[in-house]
Amino acid sequence: MLIPTFDDVLAAHERVRPHVHRTPVLTNGHLDGLSSASLFFKCENFQKVGAFKARGACNAVFSLTDEEAKRGVATHSSGNHGQAIAYAAARRGIAATIVMPETAARPKFDGVRGYGGEVVTCAPGTKAREETVAGVLERTGAAFLHPFDDARVIAGQGTAALELLQDAGPLDAIVAPVGGGGLISGTCLAASGLSPATKVFAAEPEQADDAYRSKRAGHIVEDDAPQTVADGLKASLKPLTFHFVSQHVEAVLPVSEQEIVDAMRLVWERMKIVIEPSSAVAVAAVLKNRELFAGQRVGVILTGGNVDLDRLPWAG
Amino acid sequence: MLIPTFDDVLAAHERVRPHVHRTPVLTNGHLDGLSSASLFFKCENFQKVGAFKARGACNAVFSLTDEEAKRGVATHSSGNHGQAIAYAAARRGIAATIVMPETAARPKFDGVRGYGGEVVTCAPGTKAREETVAGVLERTGAAFLHPFDDARVIAGQGTAALELLQDAGPLDAIVAPVGGGGLISGTCLAASGLSPATKVFAAEPEQADDAYRSKRAGHIVEDDAPQTVADGLKASLKPLTFHFVSQHVEAVLPVSEQEIVDAMRLVWERMKIVIEPSSAVAVAAVLKNRELFAGQRVGVILTGGNVDLDRLPWAG
Repeated sequence: MLIPTFDDVLAAHERVRPHVHRTPVLTNGHLDGLSSASLFFKCENFQKVGAFKARGACNAVFSLTDEEAKRGVATHSSGNHGQAIAYAAARRGIAATIVMPETAARPKFDGVRGYGGEVVTCAPGTKAREETVAGVLERTGAAFLHPFDDARVIAGQGTAALELLQDAGPLDAIVAPVGGGGLISGTCLAASGLSPATKVFAAEPEQADDAYRSKRAGHIVEDDAPQTVADGLKASLKPLTFHFVSQHVEAVLPVSEQEIVDAMRLVWERMKIVIEPSSAVAVAAVLKNRELFAGQRVGVILTGGNVDLDRLPWAG
Repeated sequence: MLIPTFDDVLAAHERVRPHVHRTPVLTNGHLDGLSSASLFFKCENFQKVGAFKARGACNAVFSLTDEEAKRGVATHSSGNHGQAIAYAAARRGIAATIVMPETAARPKFDGVRGYGGEVVTCAPGTKAREETVAGVLERTGAAFLHPFDDARVIAGQGTAALELLQDAGPLDAIVAPVGGGGLISGTCLAASGLSPATKVFAAEPEQADDAYRSKRAGHIVEDDAPQTVADGLKASLKPLTFHFVSQHVEAVLPVSEQEIVDAMRLVWERMKIVIEPSSAVAVAAVLKNRELFAGQRVGVILTGGNVDLDRLPWAG
């Protein structure tokens, strides 16, 4: 297991700089009042492809040797990682194949294809997906880039917290959502190198709380087909990301579905920015745990802004 | 008729600086591609009270002498101007009375009261409104601050374009929506003083196109109870704002209801920011008139972000 280091985050930052936005850090008086804290929102909803995933994808794709790169890249994802890999591959001028369940929403296919990626569909479920990916790799010789169980991807995701710490000034805490754990792991790396006193908190849907349960148990406890509005956070930890959650993360903070939707709406109404439910998980965790953050300077990573405007979670 | 000058805009900028945000100027590659232009979006949706109206209101309220101010301020508005006056009055520590039609949506009342303003309701229609305002003024001795037919308000609104020109670099054109004309008039002032070569275009709903018809006719042609999704743009020009529209504005660009809604949705999806329909009118005008703007550097004022998330115009 190759565990990335802070130096890998610094190298990733240099590598991805030409390909991703240095997104702004916003503040909001109303949310400060509600939380009794000073909040600094890292706006990865404004990132390329609409999510922080562009960082890890670009770092992984641009870490490949020319020899590796010419055979292209492949991954499986029904979400932002697939688009991010397609985007990064297009920037490097190489082929990308994204394996997606045939049940994924049409805009997800269009998103990948919009960046020039090839979509290969499979039946829903882990087995069909892995077989399909294996077939793609055998056929193409492409480099496989896992959404989070990859040191290059984790180092890339860490660049969001790196910039946040550089731009917001000293922070007592950073709160980021946890799904498979790529972002939270990279955040731990950035904080440990740049600001060791900054505590890292992981925010998680109660209905997909494998990280919470894994940290308590001391070993990985996988979710079983979790259902949550925060559809970017359904994946379970892998050994590499469990390492950071168990060793570095201060606490995992679970939030309910209603708290996620309320926080999402609050950010839209008060900050006038579009965030997806997964982003709102971190906001909800801050609002729910006032006692943890009162009086502190707290960074919050808003992970993405890709939502279906025809299916908003507060409608109907 | 007291016509404000560029110096008034500069003075307004100093006066309102402690009370309003210097909002960011955003760019977006996708919208640049669609318009074949380089667009610079002045994000007044991130402004205090969620709209540029905070600028004019603060300039007017802080222009009052202490003697005038102690009797408070009053206005009529069912929209952002009412909240802005309440906000500005609260900053100065004086009373604000906002006359609103009893048919206005509940959140509008709450907005004014949330800033400490007093709401006085009246029957819908100009006559009832004017009588009610007259009664308030007689009772309180308050200073009346018209939403746009006021040199102080116009000078304050001009500070948005002033900052846009300072922050975006040289612009070939600025596009801003026109309702009663306070913003477009202030924009003309800012451009004439800071960048005389920059052309100012007014964007207007076809269904509330009094500015378009007035400019063609050479005299004010009022709208008669216009219906448009851009509910901040229903007011008609007054002599003071007609002066700027007729003398300084390059052209008035009408857009359809569907074009407004499409542009609003496009900005939400691609820029990940919440804008209200009135803001989208300016975006729609740029997209509709490619031949006017192709190859140019164009500033677009996004005027506000106050929307009812339960009643989005593309729903249902």
